[in-house]
Amino acid sequence: MLATDDLHAPKGESATFDLSTYLTQQQALVEAALDSSLPVTYPEKIYEAMRYSLLAGGKRLRPILCLASCELAGGTVEMAMPTACALEMVHTMSLIHDDLPAMDNDDYRRGKLTNHKVYGEDIAILAGDGLLTYAFEFIASNTQNVSAARVLQVIAQLAKAVGAAGLVGGQVVDLESEGKPDIQEETLNFIHTHKTGALLEACVVCGAILAGAESETLQRMSRYAQNIGLAFQIVDDILDITATQEELGKTAGKDIQAQKATYPRLWGLEESKVKAQQLIDAAKGELATFGEKANPLIAIADFITTRTH
Amino acid sequence: MLATDDLHAPKGESATFDLSTYLTQQQALVEAALDSSLPVTYPEKIYEAMRYSLLAGGKRLRPILCLASCELAGGTVEMAMPTACALEMVHTMSLIHDDLPAMDNDDYRRGKLTNHKVYGEDIAILAGDGLLTYAFEFIASNTQNVSAARVLQVIAQLAKAVGAAGLVGGQVVDLESEGKPDIQEETLNFIHTHKTGALLEACVVCGAILAGAESETLQRMSRYAQNIGLAFQIVDDILDITATQEELGKTAGKDIQAQKATYPRLWGLEESKVKAQQLIDAAKGELATFGEKANPLIAIADFITTRTH
Repeated sequence: MLATDDLHAPKGESATFDLSTYLTQQQALVEAALDSSLPVTYPEKIYEAMRYSLLAGGKRLRPILCLASCELAGGTVEMAMPTACALEMVHTMSLIHDDLPAMDNDDYRRGKLTNHKVYGEDIAILAGDGLLTYAFEFIASNTQNVSAARVLQVIAQLAKAVGAAGLVGGQVVDLESEGKPDIQEETLNFIHTHKTGALLEACVVCGAILAGAESETLQRMSRYAQNIGLAFQIVDDILDITATQEELGKTAGKDIQAQKATYPRLWGLEESKVKAQQLIDAAKGELATFGEKANPLIAIADFITTRTH
Repeated sequence: MLATDDLHAPKGESATFDLSTYLTQQQALVEAALDSSLPVTYPEKIYEAMRYSLLAGGKRLRPILCLASCELAGGTVEMAMPTACALEMVHTMSLIHDDLPAMDNDDYRRGKLTNHKVYGEDIAILAGDGLLTYAFEFIASNTQNVSAARVLQVIAQLAKAVGAAGLVGGQVVDLESEGKPDIQEETLNFIHTHKTGALLEACVVCGAILAGAESETLQRMSRYAQNIGLAFQIVDDILDITATQEELGKTAGKDIQAQKATYPRLWGLEESKVKAQQLIDAAKGELATFGEKANPLIAIADFITTRTH
């Protein structure tokens, strides 16, 4: 997984780590595990609806973060795979429900029709519910070579990250803030640290719990995730202004048109770039003590600021 | 909790057990536990929406079954209370999502406006998601004096009962059967054993798991719940035809008007009554070896056929 000839490798301590190859390999592992996680049985329609969105592609960043964090803390890919799949199930549930007419009312996601456009709103609601509860069943029933106490900790951590104290709470504040471009930095931070940050944090913390990591490592994982999560959002906001439509694969300047509260609107473009880089540096700083085993997580952090779409 | 003067006590081996007093006492315990399970914090709206439906009353039959089964198997109320609360959270989630315009489109439940009529569809969807995930967090984080392995078993059991292999799957087949009064007995059984039966089964099985019951007891609990679950539905169908509107508290004859598939339509009224009683007898038969400790579950089974609304 190490290479010196990858022109796209980020600079710095992970310059010899080939992130692109690593992501491709891990993505294939996750894709295979997800595909076999959910066989179709009677009543077929609900399983097909769940699979339609679960297997609709995507970077699989959340499962990959979980696997990487488990390996960093001395565990194996096998230990973390059921949790990694569960994280993607939960993420998929949030997208299905988010796309519903009563929420964001989106017809397309990743170039495919959204779940409710294919299966109807009733089935889409139930497919989300089915994926959310299956995530917990999958962890509880399939995790191997990890003590029950640790698996229970993982379930508590994931459940909290998805609920009103995490993702759901972030979505509520996001809904309340719609059409209010002048919301405060505190509220904007709350939305992003909860709507996307909490689940990213659960990814790396759960991976480390499964490996039996000590409390200090878990705290480092938390801070790493909080920092890359916020940096990711700032870069997203920046790219909406600076990237071309071609690079972005979607309409550029959407945030400005929608009068959306963004970090560049709060801080200006230059200051936003500086803050994003500071967050990435801080995230990488948390991993300094882990040596080469931290290469994947360091490279993923770097990728966030160097990406152009 | 025993009394000889209750005129409404069912006949037979539990004739001296005062079910009405028992239910009132247990309901008060559950109500208090639910009330303190979910404090309101920022963002208040989502917690208020979750509490609005969670604390909207009801018989609390599911938590009470869980507590009774745990005590029957030698456990305590304290061991089972977090799971009992979680069962009600999950049940509440299913009601909130079921009432949505895209599903049954109900404006009222138990005489109160449904969740989406008060908080909006978006918040109602999120309140359901929040309750579902909080149920798992609550079990994982609050269960005391039970081994982690058993708690994990409870989580797997509950998750399966709610998902596509249980409640969600039952709802899908129910939706597919709408407007088809001539569906087969097999399909009608599937709907009821999944839409309501699976969660009832989880109630008593989880209670027994928490108490450390052996596999034979767990199987008896499963069969008890499957039998009372189906009997409950048959009696519901019968009452829709025979009860007066006053007794029912809702429009009588709704099923016939809606051309709904029911057991009396399949079997006739008299045969339906016979089958319901056979199921109740079978349910009580599963409890014969447990002596007095089985009184609450026996009385609850009897109550199903003697109720008039």
